Amino acid sequence: MNTIQHTDGLIAALFTPLHPDGSVHYELLPALVEHLISTGISGIFICGSNGEGPNLTLDERMRVSDTVINAGKGRLRMIVHVGHASIAEARKLAHHAQEAGADAISSVAAFYFKPTSVQNLADCMTDIAAGAPELPFYYYHIPSLTGFSVDVLDFMRIAEKQIPNFAGVKYTASTLWEYQECLNHEGGKYDVLYGFDENHLPALSMGAKGCIGSTFNFAAPLYLKVREYFEAGEIEKARKQMLFCVEMVRIVVQYAPIPAQKAVMKMLGFDMGPCRLPLVALPDDQYEALHRQLSEIGFFAKLNE
Amino acid sequence: MNTIQHTDGLIAALFTPLHPDGSVHYELLPALVEHLISTGISGIFICGSNGEGPNLTLDERMRVSDTVINAGKGRLRMIVHVGHASIAEARKLAHHAQEAGADAISSVAAFYFKPTSVQNLADCMTDIAAGAPELPFYYYHIPSLTGFSVDVLDFMRIAEKQIPNFAGVKYTASTLWEYQECLNHEGGKYDVLYGFDENHLPALSMGAKGCIGSTFNFAAPLYLKVREYFEAGEIEKARKQMLFCVEMVRIVVQYAPIPAQKAVMKMLGFDMGPCRLPLVALPDDQYEALHRQLSEIGFFAKLNE
Amino acid sequence: MNTIQHTDGLIAALFTPLHPDGSVHYELLPALVEHLISTGISGIFICGSNGEGPNLTLDERMRVSDTVINAGKGRLRMIVHVGHASIAEARKLAHHAQEAGADAISSVAAFYFKPTSVQNLADCMTDIAAGAPELPFYYYHIPSLTGFSVDVLDFMRIAEKQIPNFAGVKYTASTLWEYQECLNHEGGKYDVLYGFDENHLPALSMGAKGCIGSTFNFAAPLYLKVREYFEAGEIEKARKQMLFCVEMVRIVVQYAPIPAQKAVMKMLGFDMGPCRLPLVALPDDQYEALHRQLSEIGFFAKLNE
Amino acid sequence: MNTIQHTDGLIAALFTPLHPDGSVHYELLPALVEHLISTGISGIFICGSNGEGPNLTLDERMRVSDTVINAGKGRLRMIVHVGHASIAEARKLAHHAQEAGADAISSVAAFYFKPTSVQNLADCMTDIAAGAPELPFYYYHIPSLTGFSVDVLDFMRIAEKQIPNFAGVKYTASTLWEYQECLNHEGGKYDVLYGFDENHLPALSMGAKGCIGSTFNFAAPLYLKVREYFEAGEIEKARKQMLFCVEMVRIVVQYAPIPAQKAVMKMLGFDMGPCRLPLVALPDDQYEALHRQLSEIGFFAKLNE
Repeated sequence: MNTIQHTDGLIAALFTPLHPDGSVHYELLPALVEHLISTGISGIFICGSNGEGPNLTLDERMRVSDTVINAGKGRLRMIVHVGHASIAEARKLAHHAQEAGADAISSVAAFYFKPTSVQNLADCMTDIAAGAPELPFYYYHIPSLTGFSVDVLDFMRIAEKQIPNFAGVKYTASTLWEYQECLNHEGGKYDVLYGFDENHLPALSMGAKGCIGSTFNFAAPLYLKVREYFEAGEIEKARKQMLFCVEMVRIVVQYAPIPAQKAVMKMLGFDMGPCRLPLVALPDDQYEALHRQLSEIGFFAKLNE
Repeated sequence: MNTIQHTDGLIAALFTPLHPDGSVHYELLPALVEHLISTGISGIFICGSNGEGPNLTLDERMRVSDTVINAGKGRLRMIVHVGHASIAEARKLAHHAQEAGADAISSVAAFYFKPTSVQNLADCMTDIAAGAPELPFYYYHIPSLTGFSVDVLDFMRIAEKQIPNFAGVKYTASTLWEYQECLNHEGGKYDVLYGFDENHLPALSMGAKGCIGSTFNFAAPLYLKVREYFEAGEIEKARKQMLFCVEMVRIVVQYAPIPAQKAVMKMLGFDMGPCRLPLVALPDDQYEALHRQLSEIGFFAKLNE
Repeated sequence: MNTIQHTDGLIAALFTPLHPDGSVHYELLPALVEHLISTGISGIFICGSNGEGPNLTLDERMRVSDTVINAGKGRLRMIVHVGHASIAEARKLAHHAQEAGADAISSVAAFYFKPTSVQNLADCMTDIAAGAPELPFYYYHIPSLTGFSVDVLDFMRIAEKQIPNFAGVKYTASTLWEYQECLNHEGGKYDVLYGFDENHLPALSMGAKGCIGSTFNFAAPLYLKVREYFEAGEIEKARKQMLFCVEMVRIVVQYAPIPAQKAVMKMLGFDMGPCRLPLVALPDDQYEALHRQLSEIGFFAKLNE
Repeated sequence: MNTIQHTDGLIAALFTPLHPDGSVHYELLPALVEHLISTGISGIFICGSNGEGPNLTLDERMRVSDTVINAGKGRLRMIVHVGHASIAEARKLAHHAQEAGADAISSVAAFYFKPTSVQNLADCMTDIAAGAPELPFYYYHIPSLTGFSVDVLDFMRIAEKQIPNFAGVKYTASTLWEYQECLNHEGGKYDVLYGFDENHLPALSMGAKGCIGSTFNFAAPLYLKVREYFEAGEIEKARKQMLFCVEMVRIVVQYAPIPAQKAVMKMLGFDMGPCRLPLVALPDDQYEALHRQLSEIGFFAKLNE
């Protein structure tokens, strides 16, 4: 790889639609892809946490990847998440992603046995990245879910030496100072994607370009306006728009976040079905309450402004 | 199931031997089974944490189970650990264990997305247990590894209602008061196996019978003597013997515990090979230091007393 | 100090009675001391966690110590807890305890800024112990409250070298294997008091003699019977008695533990008044529910057996 | 209080200078005040975490407050931190601050026994704030040190009802989305000070005005330029300046943060002396290494640009 491609814009961490019996609703995926394109999304993060990747079987993960890539290849950047408790399985997913035509792969740290040091993490990621040697590899940093934290800059310094296809990081943490250092490491050589939707404006202030988020699945236009105002130097307007997003997120995360966001998708016409245990779909009364709260702040109207 | 079988004695949490290239060394498994039988072990816990179960692929886990069961079936109680981040995969493992002739299955809580309540945990376990309806099911409680804690007595009260093949718990925590309540729940109806080797004597004082442990792979005779003294009312001797085990464990866990224990197996003539990342085999200097420290306390001599 | 005195029996972690307006009810302390003596208690731990020590002012802590020591000196072993976020204040409390005629002092680790290593902890404790050079000093290990954990055996190895009046540890953790090693360190030279009431029998199995507990304030006779049975080799009876204690503790800790135990004291005729914020006395309905639950298991009857 | 004063600019979390014997070096405080004024500081946070407040005795905390207030009153905004494990002691400190002429008080949550709910936290803060009824009160939110987290917006909704002198929050956490909501609560009625130096630019992007920080003691000019660029809409320059601050902070926090920052003060001519245990002054070799690293990035030169 000569030059690392730098992602710009919003990448949706796609939810995985299920049939009422819990099997994957593959047929709905192309419509979701079209929806994302129509709302201004630049890429898709496939089978990540929000896609319930670790809850799916290996076969299901591969078929979801195939279906999404086929539906949107060339129109959206396709990043497949291959993280797994077993590095051997992760490597199979990486290999498959390359065969399937993905644009990049990404992986969380092992999450049953956790890495014991930065070097150990890098060794794990090296093994996984080798499964798809022709694709850019992004380390997916999300300590709140994996329970494993690390100095990401230190990680990058090792990764760039031993992972030939190392491309950057999906950085999902609120420590923006470290994020800024990663962004600027080696003159900004690497693609460091920011992963907390509700911290979008602060991330932009530090220089974020590409961002990956779950609420981008249904609220991309709101965030695109934050970016527009920010780039135009209209900081007051950017803040006001950001505050609206933050209030929307606050409402959503009162409930179980992934089920609640699948519910919002349904409110917008995409019935995502239930969740896989231990996640559980919102019960009807919570669905109604969520709908009411989002209506009260004018969420649905604002989407169409 | 009419009456739940109560396990007695020591169950070894079997390590999985690997070839130098990291592939599973299936051919060594029968010899390990014979070794365990010859040292007084009553059962084997297959593909648990110590067996690096979550590091193996689904296929490898099934083949390890097949091989171990074939080697020792009828002579040792065979409990297959089927826990997986994906409940769908866990269920496949459960089904396979039943087909393979296991005596029981066991599962940890989901460990990427964690259960959100006792009821949610019970729902997850119900789904997994249904994969092997003819086998006794044990919930594997190990909060230090899964990062998920729960009131185990509350769990049992739900599990006994909704899991037809619920048999008990592999209780791996130091909260012996809760363990005692679980042991005595419903007049001692359930089989509650204790899982911390270094707490063996205290667990016996509370009424433990069956215990699962990793150091039982190489030090069963030491623990059998603790039990013998305890049952004979010779508490001073039991304490002294226990203290020796505790000191041995302290030496071992100075190093990475699973790699260090695989090293001890090698010292006893069973070359277990490397580990799967993120676990890493002991480097030579640590191997030598561990050997020296165990020799200094007389560990190898004491094994043959 | 030539030989370290080894404590035997039950030491009550005394609650601090308050007037309805929140001021300390010093006048009730002598009656509490008599109550403890009459129920078979061997010592008092003054102004510890259960005594809300860190919630009191320095002056109040000194006056509580004075009052309790005056009431029971010579009849009960008096250990004053002097732990404080400020080591300088802890040292003042230590000095005062010596002047007041205490038998020993004890201190938790600093709890705003936490120690950074075993050596650093030992340095802190050395400073505090020097405030009462003529009294035995006990390190109070309670990681669940201070948020600071340490290898206690390693601590003892440093403490014995640099704290001239080092006498032992109040060990409040469920890791009984480490506790056993501490008990046996240097041939059992030090006095290692066990601090989890609900783990009493397992601690005895490891060799515990002196134990410090909060439920000993009102349930000493129950634990004394556990000890009696255990010492007589009647392990089944000891277990059954222990199980009763464990069930009693389970009921109590459903509520806020310190307020609930002050409520139990009131049920026995000692009105301990409210608590200091952030602790809050049980509301009336919880008081009634607690009383009902304890009655249902026969707690009050059993106390008088 | 009719209208709450909104702080602007940088407030230094003052370090407490000590004599070599560990006693407080009060005589140096006025020079520190002059230094802060000369570098563009707007206020002082007295006896906070960085000032080792919880390590000092009550008397020392009062005398430090007196000395600093006398030295800079009217020229800098004086906020006295009164947090203490004992609410009764905190209240004494609050009362004293009011007598001493402070402009405001602030308190962390109780940190031995932790609050059990938002309401409970508010009740604690109400008690403390009542000790200085004529001064504005700021809740000091710093979960990383107190180990207690809370939804700060929920806290504000209770605090504004029951604390007559509630003025705002010292918000020391990286969760900028919540910070933004707090800033905008009730139309921006409250003064919400941001507390992470290394997140300065992102905080500005969300609308921060007043900020409290420890590196402001020695690096205020660097941050003032970040603000200048940001306000002028020169975001690239602001980022570059911020990155320099972030790199400086990264160097400092490789060492124990408070001792390392006291060392930087010494490099600038203010010998702050040692620290109070469990904090320990940097050993000489670390002092030299820190000096070298800061020189290498041009820190000292840049201060005088």
